[in-house]
Amino acid sequence: MIRFESDYLEGAHPAILKKMAETNLEQTPGYGLDPYCESARESIRRLCRNDGADVQFLVGGTQANLTVAASILRPHQGVVAADTGHVNCHESGAIEATGHKVLTAKNENGKLTARQVRRIYDEHWGDANREHMVQPGMVYVSHPTEFGTLYTKAELRDLSGVCRECGLPLYLDGARLGYGFMAEENDLTLADLAKLCDVFSIGGTKVGALFGEAVVIPGEGLRQDFRYILKQRGGMLAKGRLLGIQFDVLFRDGLYFKISEHADRLAVKLKKAFLAKGFPLLCDSGTNQQFPILPDGALAVLAKKYSFSFWKKADASHSAVRFCTSWATRESDVDELIRDLAAL
Amino acid sequence: MIRFESDYLEGAHPAILKKMAETNLEQTPGYGLDPYCESARESIRRLCRNDGADVQFLVGGTQANLTVAASILRPHQGVVAADTGHVNCHESGAIEATGHKVLTAKNENGKLTARQVRRIYDEHWGDANREHMVQPGMVYVSHPTEFGTLYTKAELRDLSGVCRECGLPLYLDGARLGYGFMAEENDLTLADLAKLCDVFSIGGTKVGALFGEAVVIPGEGLRQDFRYILKQRGGMLAKGRLLGIQFDVLFRDGLYFKISEHADRLAVKLKKAFLAKGFPLLCDSGTNQQFPILPDGALAVLAKKYSFSFWKKADASHSAVRFCTSWATRESDVDELIRDLAAL
Amino acid sequence: MIRFESDYLEGAHPAILKKMAETNLEQTPGYGLDPYCESARESIRRLCRNDGADVQFLVGGTQANLTVAASILRPHQGVVAADTGHVNCHESGAIEATGHKVLTAKNENGKLTARQVRRIYDEHWGDANREHMVQPGMVYVSHPTEFGTLYTKAELRDLSGVCRECGLPLYLDGARLGYGFMAEENDLTLADLAKLCDVFSIGGTKVGALFGEAVVIPGEGLRQDFRYILKQRGGMLAKGRLLGIQFDVLFRDGLYFKISEHADRLAVKLKKAFLAKGFPLLCDSGTNQQFPILPDGALAVLAKKYSFSFWKKADASHSAVRFCTSWATRESDVDELIRDLAAL
Amino acid sequence: MIRFESDYLEGAHPAILKKMAETNLEQTPGYGLDPYCESARESIRRLCRNDGADVQFLVGGTQANLTVAASILRPHQGVVAADTGHVNCHESGAIEATGHKVLTAKNENGKLTARQVRRIYDEHWGDANREHMVQPGMVYVSHPTEFGTLYTKAELRDLSGVCRECGLPLYLDGARLGYGFMAEENDLTLADLAKLCDVFSIGGTKVGALFGEAVVIPGEGLRQDFRYILKQRGGMLAKGRLLGIQFDVLFRDGLYFKISEHADRLAVKLKKAFLAKGFPLLCDSGTNQQFPILPDGALAVLAKKYSFSFWKKADASHSAVRFCTSWATRESDVDELIRDLAAL
Repeated sequence: MIRFESDYLEGAHPAILKKMAETNLEQTPGYGLDPYCESARESIRRLCRNDGADVQFLVGGTQANLTVAASILRPHQGVVAADTGHVNCHESGAIEATGHKVLTAKNENGKLTARQVRRIYDEHWGDANREHMVQPGMVYVSHPTEFGTLYTKAELRDLSGVCRECGLPLYLDGARLGYGFMAEENDLTLADLAKLCDVFSIGGTKVGALFGEAVVIPGEGLRQDFRYILKQRGGMLAKGRLLGIQFDVLFRDGLYFKISEHADRLAVKLKKAFLAKGFPLLCDSGTNQQFPILPDGALAVLAKKYSFSFWKKADASHSAVRFCTSWATRESDVDELIRDLAAL
Repeated sequence: MIRFESDYLEGAHPAILKKMAETNLEQTPGYGLDPYCESARESIRRLCRNDGADVQFLVGGTQANLTVAASILRPHQGVVAADTGHVNCHESGAIEATGHKVLTAKNENGKLTARQVRRIYDEHWGDANREHMVQPGMVYVSHPTEFGTLYTKAELRDLSGVCRECGLPLYLDGARLGYGFMAEENDLTLADLAKLCDVFSIGGTKVGALFGEAVVIPGEGLRQDFRYILKQRGGMLAKGRLLGIQFDVLFRDGLYFKISEHADRLAVKLKKAFLAKGFPLLCDSGTNQQFPILPDGALAVLAKKYSFSFWKKADASHSAVRFCTSWATRESDVDELIRDLAAL
Repeated sequence: MIRFESDYLEGAHPAILKKMAETNLEQTPGYGLDPYCESARESIRRLCRNDGADVQFLVGGTQANLTVAASILRPHQGVVAADTGHVNCHESGAIEATGHKVLTAKNENGKLTARQVRRIYDEHWGDANREHMVQPGMVYVSHPTEFGTLYTKAELRDLSGVCRECGLPLYLDGARLGYGFMAEENDLTLADLAKLCDVFSIGGTKVGALFGEAVVIPGEGLRQDFRYILKQRGGMLAKGRLLGIQFDVLFRDGLYFKISEHADRLAVKLKKAFLAKGFPLLCDSGTNQQFPILPDGALAVLAKKYSFSFWKKADASHSAVRFCTSWATRESDVDELIRDLAAL
Repeated sequence: MIRFESDYLEGAHPAILKKMAETNLEQTPGYGLDPYCESARESIRRLCRNDGADVQFLVGGTQANLTVAASILRPHQGVVAADTGHVNCHESGAIEATGHKVLTAKNENGKLTARQVRRIYDEHWGDANREHMVQPGMVYVSHPTEFGTLYTKAELRDLSGVCRECGLPLYLDGARLGYGFMAEENDLTLADLAKLCDVFSIGGTKVGALFGEAVVIPGEGLRQDFRYILKQRGGMLAKGRLLGIQFDVLFRDGLYFKISEHADRLAVKLKKAFLAKGFPLLCDSGTNQQFPILPDGALAVLAKKYSFSFWKKADASHSAVRFCTSWATRESDVDELIRDLAAL
């Protein structure tokens, strides 16, 4: 079975395992207070062009999201997100379990817009009964989105502008960030995120690491006691240096970007093959998640050899599915799939 | 600097890194639903002599504790623990963050007794105003305890018996479980735990793994929907097979027990050296954590070369400290420390 | 200013104040364990035709809703409700503050349907990734709804049937229950609710009492330790007998129903006047909340003399507003409003 | 049965019922935004000598405590309190249910001392591992305490001073505040509380009202969005004016102080009778709660005619009990009890 159902099917980029093996018996303090975390932190700061940014390492995406929300919001506040946002759909209510509501707006191509945030904010503050409603307290976006789509620099700038006018911290969930950066149409950099966002995460788990997300807090305002909340929520890894090592390797010599470029190239190659066969796309993604709509019969044939994720029924005889490429995807596997697609 | 300040200073047992490297590019589904987790689960079941036990893998100890508590307790219920219990002291209020109180009893040599549990239970249920008080909902013990001490089989049997009479699920936090099993005075086995406890964890992080805890749920009653809560609290690792691989290696050919025996042997060697030098012990531990009380002057000398954890002031000129050995401790380092102790 | 903006503008029905004055210096135990609460409990049981129903008295509607949710749901579970449900809109995230998500369906005339509940349930249990999603754990409906509309007996029976098939406790928020019972088109009784619902509340605050809601739990399953959670959430009134006295008076000689009938009659009178003037209704309510759509100019005129609640903009020059009648509404005030409407 | 078991046995001071009857059919907006609440707020501000103090009205003591804690604390922070503090003992874990731990110190005559707060603060901030521990976030004291004892002005000043040095908001739970003010040894005023505390409550429920507590927030810092959290936790009364009316009456013409003086006078009379009979006191209280220690046989005799609360066993044949007086206590009942005590 050749698997395309997710981007966390394999272990880690070999350079990471190599570094882990090399450093294995070194003794370092725990909880992220070690030289590897510091080195990774420095690399990330450099790329962000922000010497003072705080960078904390967590074990996973859901953990990162719930910890950031818990650290930012007061009890009566909620997270503004697109209805398709990961925090609203696929984290088993992790945000709500910290006591907060997720306030949603209908996604536009997977994205949340500046106008939507402004509207939600104005509606709340313009309502005489607002004390009876959850107050918007922060904004959550994912980039790439759950649909593989990307915010343009202009869109993120607008979003950031509105968030700052409204006093709403903007948090960007970058679980697949590398795949976003290396997409053809991307015009955002880490430095942009550090300027435009109040907090953002750099995904490791889906982009070459065994596990881990780096949460970057560029400004002073949101840092206080973040590590307490990290520990309280169970996300502070005892052998924290493992995260430092992984991010250190990923951000050395641009490995993070190289492996992301590989995944995106193969994804686009696959996308073109779907389109060439006349299969429409649920949404037009230039990143590692592709969402073609295929006849159910064709899917049954492909399923004998390939795995992919069922996304949703398109109509009685067609389904939208998701094929993921990743840093680990073998071009030969993609080529084989393309051949089998053509043969359908 | 030779470090003895914790038992999570190094990476993992080389066999684990080797297995990770071997399997690195294999594709498996995520979230613990892969063959390695299943294999590790089987090994653990076998050792527990319980074919039907559920075994879930989590990323860390605090995560395990808070997830177990959240899954067992109803809102008005609390966790009964010794005042020195990890959940009461060193998890930044992780249990309280799930909404529950920790009800404590004064530790007896680091342990909670059956008599204490019975008393707390009877006091609650005998109080006419009990609706105004947190209801005991489960019992938490750690084995070894935070002081390295161990429950005897008789003690655990008594505790288990009282817990069952009182209808209080008994959860045993085994963050250092291996070190407990291989101590000279130990008379407990995994099979005993599976019989006497309602839930227990097998620590990976401190006992040879990079990270990870296996939560074992022997009986049917407490399993339902555990995985939802695991995900909700951020503890469900995307690349779950990493946990399966690690526990699979640890429980193959008794590696877990071998490396624990190594650590305990060195710990006892060190203990004898402290005693030989006339340094008393804060508590008498036969496991990998040792708590000698030394003159502050001696500690200042040792601190130039060794790291250890400050535990508490004993008096104006003496402090209790903690020295940890682990699966990774080099006997030569212990011998060097012993020589330097003798030279004090 | 003649006020119609809510149904909690006045104090209480004089019979209640009279009884309070009569019993004022009697000494009774607190927390609802007094003869008045027992008497009110008995009256309610009788009307419910359920001798064994548990009846607990709380101080308010939001309190009742959050306490019921907290007592029923496990952490990973959420409340299924119409998007217009009070718990989703006007309780400042009270449910989320207890850790749970509200899973919504688009309201149909203010109501949640059996089909929608079935769909939400089936979608969840049919999803291979359901562990990553909030599990439906109970169903919330309000009757009358936030739009003053009513469930028919058939609709409630269908809803109840689906809830039981799905194992989802059905909770009916009856903050305005009396106004529902006395509406022309109503075909539900308290006995029906006791048969079809797993928990329901009988509103006091909006229906003649100073404050208070009675939460009725007909069956055994959901009662355990409810009072602990009541206390924990701050809803257990010290002078509990005040709630017993109020509900005792309300359910003596059918006062609850008489005063509700009064309010509904006046509401319908008002509704007819709106329709006679050619003003459409946002929704067709036969209960004490009426939602006419008027030209903004007309509203400005009315606003000089009357208060009402702005509901939402209908278009550029029209707004939907809410006029409430209640047990306290004076017919002369309604007649005056009707005259002023005619004069517009 | 003549009841002395609590101070919430009766309804309210007749002046309150009278005012409620007078105003019963007046129409006012809800949620505390009415002229009566404003009037009560003004009276309280005047007595506090703080024109800008915010005053919010809640339904009960547990509600007040949990709402204040939720509004002040960040997730990783806890409440510092005496081990006998109400929030630690008799609120069914209401604080923990908001996600926060209660950090206790051994009570000194029912009180928490400035030195204890300083110690707890210093211990936390001096601990290298503090990120693994709950951070003290506020201080809770009750006045009178659960034992009827009182803070002197000097003690409260010291406590306040330390709290301010440590940046810990000081919250004083005044559930029985009036009884404290009118005690012989009292040297505190409302104006003192407004100067020394960051938040404090004025109890209504136990001091003449049907129900209700006024939460006073003298300074700007802690007010923001308090009302949202009030609503979210279910403590915002729909017919808020009921609280305004009650506190308005209580603080008109010093009624609050008069009725408290009555209760304290009778309590002291009773205390003297216990002492005259040779019965020791569990603690020396000058307020409305008295804690004599009597032989169990004597208690059995008294119990035939009087109710009182069992407090704790003193030894095999003696128990400490609690007798409460209140604004409603009849002197003749106290005299009868005194006669029966003498006759024992």
